[in-house]
Amino acid sequence: MFADRLLDAIDRKRSFLVVGIDPALERLPKELLQEAEAAGGDRWEVAERAITRFGIELIAATAEYAVAIKPQLAYFERYGWRGLRAFERIVQEARASGLLVIADGKRNDIGSTAEAYAEAYLGDAPFAVDALTVNAYLGKDGVEPFISRGEASGRGLFVLVKTSNPSSGELQDLVAEGERLYIRVGRAVQGWNLPPGKRGFGSVGAVVGATYPEQLAELRRLMPNTLFLVPGFGAQGGTATDVVGAFDSDTGYGGLINSSRAIMYAYEANPGMERTAAQGEAARQARDAINAALEAAGRLPKAFHQA
Amino acid sequence: MFADRLLDAIDRKRSFLVVGIDPALERLPKELLQEAEAAGGDRWEVAERAITRFGIELIAATAEYAVAIKPQLAYFERYGWRGLRAFERIVQEARASGLLVIADGKRNDIGSTAEAYAEAYLGDAPFAVDALTVNAYLGKDGVEPFISRGEASGRGLFVLVKTSNPSSGELQDLVAEGERLYIRVGRAVQGWNLPPGKRGFGSVGAVVGATYPEQLAELRRLMPNTLFLVPGFGAQGGTATDVVGAFDSDTGYGGLINSSRAIMYAYEANPGMERTAAQGEAARQARDAINAALEAAGRLPKAFHQA
Repeated sequence: MFADRLLDAIDRKRSFLVVGIDPALERLPKELLQEAEAAGGDRWEVAERAITRFGIELIAATAEYAVAIKPQLAYFERYGWRGLRAFERIVQEARASGLLVIADGKRNDIGSTAEAYAEAYLGDAPFAVDALTVNAYLGKDGVEPFISRGEASGRGLFVLVKTSNPSSGELQDLVAEGERLYIRVGRAVQGWNLPPGKRGFGSVGAVVGATYPEQLAELRRLMPNTLFLVPGFGAQGGTATDVVGAFDSDTGYGGLINSSRAIMYAYEANPGMERTAAQGEAARQARDAINAALEAAGRLPKAFHQA
Repeated sequence: MFADRLLDAIDRKRSFLVVGIDPALERLPKELLQEAEAAGGDRWEVAERAITRFGIELIAATAEYAVAIKPQLAYFERYGWRGLRAFERIVQEARASGLLVIADGKRNDIGSTAEAYAEAYLGDAPFAVDALTVNAYLGKDGVEPFISRGEASGRGLFVLVKTSNPSSGELQDLVAEGERLYIRVGRAVQGWNLPPGKRGFGSVGAVVGATYPEQLAELRRLMPNTLFLVPGFGAQGGTATDVVGAFDSDTGYGGLINSSRAIMYAYEANPGMERTAAQGEAARQARDAINAALEAAGRLPKAFHQA
């Protein structure tokens, strides 16, 4: 069961950190691009080579400090099928390094097509990962195929509830029949997690942005059996203190904190450091900042204290 | 500009038909699968070979009767990077056959990632198509990157407004601040189309299901400059009469009617007919049924009458 597996991995790693992998070719280090070009081929072959190497080296640098990686599919789709071959290779590398993989695709469609997406990411297929992000605008028959496929395969999903972007409130904060839309979606997600697994959480997580800490705390109260995948930490402005609300005040579990650009591109801000050393250091600091904020709030899980 | 190009193509083809390509391996004809297997390779190589051939032959069979194809990305992602290589090959074949291509991906994300998706499907990239379907649950900063990239490249998008599935009303029909959610999204989409192109429509279309004909007519009144991509015709139960409301009562333009399974798998219902003959005949009948329903409602465009 996905939620139990994830919580066991969190205890083992003593980390709530997820490292986002969103490799934008134009931002990769010049020398890495030059080496990829030197090996020949057209621009998409070069792109595949560059993002594969960047991703694999990022995993090696940060695996010790993270519980999962979150590759953002958009950044692989940009390079065509070769980009998706890089995605498959990076997923393999993450598994070999003992990391879970959450594919950030925000997939959604009507029932029969949702089944095809569920098969692709949570089934027996080359893109299979541990969990997938899903958009619920189509209602429950667009989400349930992911839930059933995940139950059968021991995988999970994270439903968009309250996203981290500035205009997320335009639809998500609207009040209908006495409650905000994101609250309504959140309630539905919580319902899908009953009964929860042996660690207290179900495998239908929620995406809740770190940039809206009040909503994070409000949703935690409302969704006690739901894991929160929290983007917006780091480059988007969310701090370790902002994300404390994602965690249960008794057990200290419930959050999963993603940082993408602040770790991936940490070497840009540290020109004296080697690329992977800077990434590793940024991941270590992110993990520690989250744990320290939890400790300060009296929410660090007991298992983290045992040496 | 995408909308003008599309309307010119509609006049040239005298067709509002879009052929959906959602190739589910397990439903493909046995002899096609056996031939794909006979050529060797692992199951994903076999899958790539089978869906590529099925798609190319479907395009050859139906190109005369359709204005565009709509490949559903889920059915390609199921087969990993090899499935996406089949997608690229099918897109090339459609262009060579004079068809426009609408990728049905329902993509969505925060601004910077939406830019990456926009670059992938509406920019200079291997997956570039004429238009992409987009989910607007994240608000305008998740949609605008697609609009700007499409303006720069002459491509377009279709925003989910009212989807064709049974549970689409759970969120989309909620009333907030005095109006239903799908109406609010529809108004935003209409606003993005002002000023429209020389044919009266903008390049930010809307997805509106054929299974909700009343909402279709309501949205047409509210969104006079917006093209509607209408799924749900055929296998999902929508009829030619149901889709008339997608078209402007004066000019006869505004709709784009998709049929996927009823055309793709037409040979299953016609065991006496050769596969591609059955698909071509189903496409011809769908085109004619739509045009006949428009004629009966006095909405067939003038250009369709000129020989």
